[in-house]
Amino acid sequence: MVPWGRGGGPELEALWRERPLIARLDEVLGAPLDEGGDAALLPLPGRAVVSVDQQVEGVDFDLGFMDWQDVGWRALAAALSDLAAAGADAYAYFLVLGLPAHMSEEAALRLAEGMRAAADQHGVRLGGGDLGLAPHVSVTLTVVGSVPTDERPLSRAGARPGDLLFVTGVPGLAAAGLKALQAGRSEPQAAARFLRPTARLEVGRALRRLPAHAAIDVSDGLAAEAHALARLSRVGVRLDLRALPPLPIFAGEAEALALTGGDDYELLFAVPPDLAADLGRLSLPVSPVGEVLPAAQGVRVIGRDGRERALGEEGYQHGRDA
Amino acid sequence: MVPWGRGGGPELEALWRERPLIARLDEVLGAPLDEGGDAALLPLPGRAVVSVDQQVEGVDFDLGFMDWQDVGWRALAAALSDLAAAGADAYAYFLVLGLPAHMSEEAALRLAEGMRAAADQHGVRLGGGDLGLAPHVSVTLTVVGSVPTDERPLSRAGARPGDLLFVTGVPGLAAAGLKALQAGRSEPQAAARFLRPTARLEVGRALRRLPAHAAIDVSDGLAAEAHALARLSRVGVRLDLRALPPLPIFAGEAEALALTGGDDYELLFAVPPDLAADLGRLSLPVSPVGEVLPAAQGVRVIGRDGRERALGEEGYQHGRDA
Repeated sequence: MVPWGRGGGPELEALWRERPLIARLDEVLGAPLDEGGDAALLPLPGRAVVSVDQQVEGVDFDLGFMDWQDVGWRALAAALSDLAAAGADAYAYFLVLGLPAHMSEEAALRLAEGMRAAADQHGVRLGGGDLGLAPHVSVTLTVVGSVPTDERPLSRAGARPGDLLFVTGVPGLAAAGLKALQAGRSEPQAAARFLRPTARLEVGRALRRLPAHAAIDVSDGLAAEAHALARLSRVGVRLDLRALPPLPIFAGEAEALALTGGDDYELLFAVPPDLAADLGRLSLPVSPVGEVLPAAQGVRVIGRDGRERALGEEGYQHGRDA
Repeated sequence: MVPWGRGGGPELEALWRERPLIARLDEVLGAPLDEGGDAALLPLPGRAVVSVDQQVEGVDFDLGFMDWQDVGWRALAAALSDLAAAGADAYAYFLVLGLPAHMSEEAALRLAEGMRAAADQHGVRLGGGDLGLAPHVSVTLTVVGSVPTDERPLSRAGARPGDLLFVTGVPGLAAAGLKALQAGRSEPQAAARFLRPTARLEVGRALRRLPAHAAIDVSDGLAAEAHALARLSRVGVRLDLRALPPLPIFAGEAEALALTGGDDYELLFAVPPDLAADLGRLSLPVSPVGEVLPAAQGVRVIGRDGRERALGEEGYQHGRDA
């Protein structure tokens, strides 16, 4: 019952005593990995790969058009997306919940239900947690995965000029789903991609074994991630949006949504040309999206209209040159 | 430069662009373990042991009598104390900072300075981090350690009737330090124990090898931890406060401060009688503090006056029987 730490002062202490929230969270989330410990022992099958992620109410999520189950699901999927980008095998997650004193137990349990559903979907289990009082709801997740001892995780720093770029899924679809939700339009497929994303763990593992030269998860839009890849790999990037799958809604804004929309949790990755055929044989849900250039060429984009231009980090156009 | 994730919306984005906070944090905290990755590879020398901990402004810390450096130090030491209780070798920490838009860069850097000092003191390094906008300052830490593959971490669940109990350091001293700080009294030794605690990593490792039957870190006072140990190990506990080191200040309240004062980050642990002599030869800074009883006897305490009574989880007296 208690790998959960406790913090939070008299108000939350009172909350716990009146309503055994931790016990009910345990029922929803499942028994933690190491029930007896102040810390959890993780019998990982390889070398540890760790990432952390936080989501704060009013900043990273808004309950106007999503419910607590969505919040729980999205937080875990977003965190696991970093393990996917590293090509790691996901193993366990640690949940730190900051809860306001006025938050209902029901809301906390619904958040846990959404997280448990995402955990089952992605094949990870609860390692441990910490519960504390906070002015706003915050969900901080540590995800722990592993790679076999004779393999390396994927990096964002390994792309080389000449590599081909690919991206999973439909970039911009989550942003289109958010836009539909905000407008009150019923677009279940797009909304689901925003509310219930799936981390691309299987693709990441396949890329680790290929191996791809570099991978990064697309949480802030293709423009920002292309810049991050370019900066970390010390290369240039030319995105080419012409082969991306079309957006089922807001098609007229497809380019802007793909470049600047967030929350896709797809993978953008670089593969040397001689491995592109191997990639094709894997039948992964990926589309070609450009190539890696020498650093001096910066970050560029070829739009759906076939015109090439320099691409700013925010996706805005910095000058124009065909 | 960037194992740091980013979140937090336009306000914090603006903060980053105007002032490269992450780069300055990196200067203070040191280069992270895996600069290229969305997730950090940890080449642990054994099996992974993980714990998480959060501290929220106004709930877990108060800047009325501590500065940002203290906040950073305490947060990391508190998190590492869980690894100490597990007897793990500390390896790395992951920092998730929630910062309000109005927080000065100077304050954030001072927090980082205190954390770096604690990291150096405890021999751990930054694995990665995530920075986000939050309504109040929150510091969430994941600490990762390891135990050799042929050893087990210490548990809170292994105490057996007949075991002897010991505790490190001077229980109640941190609470006395806090009391002095709140009263504006200058008591540097006690205040330092509250503001700059040291996690008992070396003691924990020695106990893992002994091995002790169980260990728990004392963050909420001896009464609460004795109850946790009893509950998790399914035993009873008789604390005996007569052999504890005296408090240098507030000596008249020593018993209450030891039982209910928080923030000591000492270790309470159970050792079978035949290993007590081995424990003595290790010359650790420990005091005997009672024994483990059968579960039916509950949690009891012998006070400094020699009288025995039942002990509630909050340290209050539940009835009295000599």
